[in-house]
Amino acid sequence: MKTMSTKRILITNDDGIHAEGLKALEQGLLPLGDVYVVAPEREMSATSQSISIHLPLRVRVHDERHYAVSGTPADAVILALHQILSFMPDIVLSGINQGANLGENIIYSGTVAGALEATLHGVPAIAVSLASRKQTDFSGAASFAAQLAAKVLEEGLPPGVMLNVNVPRVQAGGVRLTRQSRKITQNVIHAKTDPRGRPYYWQDETVAFDRVEPDSDYAAIRAHEISITPLQVDRTDYACLNHLSEWMPSLNSTVAK
Amino acid sequence: MKTMSTKRILITNDDGIHAEGLKALEQGLLPLGDVYVVAPEREMSATSQSISIHLPLRVRVHDERHYAVSGTPADAVILALHQILSFMPDIVLSGINQGANLGENIIYSGTVAGALEATLHGVPAIAVSLASRKQTDFSGAASFAAQLAAKVLEEGLPPGVMLNVNVPRVQAGGVRLTRQSRKITQNVIHAKTDPRGRPYYWQDETVAFDRVEPDSDYAAIRAHEISITPLQVDRTDYACLNHLSEWMPSLNSTVAK
Repeated sequence: MKTMSTKRILITNDDGIHAEGLKALEQGLLPLGDVYVVAPEREMSATSQSISIHLPLRVRVHDERHYAVSGTPADAVILALHQILSFMPDIVLSGINQGANLGENIIYSGTVAGALEATLHGVPAIAVSLASRKQTDFSGAASFAAQLAAKVLEEGLPPGVMLNVNVPRVQAGGVRLTRQSRKITQNVIHAKTDPRGRPYYWQDETVAFDRVEPDSDYAAIRAHEISITPLQVDRTDYACLNHLSEWMPSLNSTVAK
Repeated sequence: MKTMSTKRILITNDDGIHAEGLKALEQGLLPLGDVYVVAPEREMSATSQSISIHLPLRVRVHDERHYAVSGTPADAVILALHQILSFMPDIVLSGINQGANLGENIIYSGTVAGALEATLHGVPAIAVSLASRKQTDFSGAASFAAQLAAKVLEEGLPPGVMLNVNVPRVQAGGVRLTRQSRKITQNVIHAKTDPRGRPYYWQDETVAFDRVEPDSDYAAIRAHEISITPLQVDRTDYACLNHLSEWMPSLNSTVAK
């Protein structure tokens, strides 16, 4: 028997509180401690890290461990940490998302945003996605999420860093540390006409797999390996700061009074 | 007279196509080239880089240089680059936002997202915000935006990097290169009760100015200087990759089949 104090785990997602991926994640994490669910009441995919500042938020209490929030994943985490829970959790997990969050698509991801919001508040966090839009068996991804969560609970994470995990549909074994791929998608706009003759547009994308870089998140998934990418809150490009410093004299002289 | 070819400039924002800040930006940029406006039809603050993938988008053509999109700033830029314009612009500017985009709040910012979306597509981009929720004179910020845009048109920007510019309400002169501040805000949840007796929540924040770091974006604004922060698309924490590599043997051994 372990004698360490019981861990408190918060989970959220962007597919909504009724999503199968969230339930699988909860089940997978139960052996690690007390699991609290605070998640959007409905699907919030591609909401990125948007927050509701012009609308009031509602919280629906299902039971003392399950809460649905009328907002985005970031809203759910903010309300969980500052209103719903009476403690700071030891770790936050977001997912399991139905569909990959790779390359530049992490920028749009509500799943990643849920984890990053926790990171902003100093809580170690992991985003977990299953790289399939069709797969409904989340058990493999949940099992790995629990392993990794146990490791993070033991070792911690550096401040300002979260882990973005993508699990392939079929695992060939192995875990790969990766970096966020450069944009290898091509935007596709489907222009259509509604029954009243007016145009409308659906956006979609295709992936140019011939441009996959070997150390990227896409490469791991293509090799049927689990991808772990450490993502940082700080987006400052420090190398560019030096580059730009050469511009300063000309800008300063025209602006300074 | 310069003989260089006419520059083509795309502007967007998150306050909507009728916002004063957008009009001031357009006026300020007219001397630099042909300005095209593709902006959300209504206010989209704090939408972060969310995109509309479950809803069709509409485009309202005001005239050949002005288009309103029924989506977010990122939607507007994607539609502009792949549907509305028949060319790739030389530069994209997003703003001028009514209110600062500093520290971790850049993560929620639709203004920053509009610029970052352009960066993803290889177009140099600048986000411009006026650090005041009340000020309605955008002329100083527009003037600086035009200066900086001219510089970027001349010099370019490194791939995957955009500039996040915040202009103080009252300028004391000077421009400062800064980094994104760590989170120095404190989330505040206002719990209220509606006329039917049910609770609802508004989220807000306060800033702990005693925690301002000297080289940060907040510090520049506090000193009444213009802040320029280079932000990168790639969020990979490369230092953390080394740290995590020590975890791999234990994870690999349990996952590999």
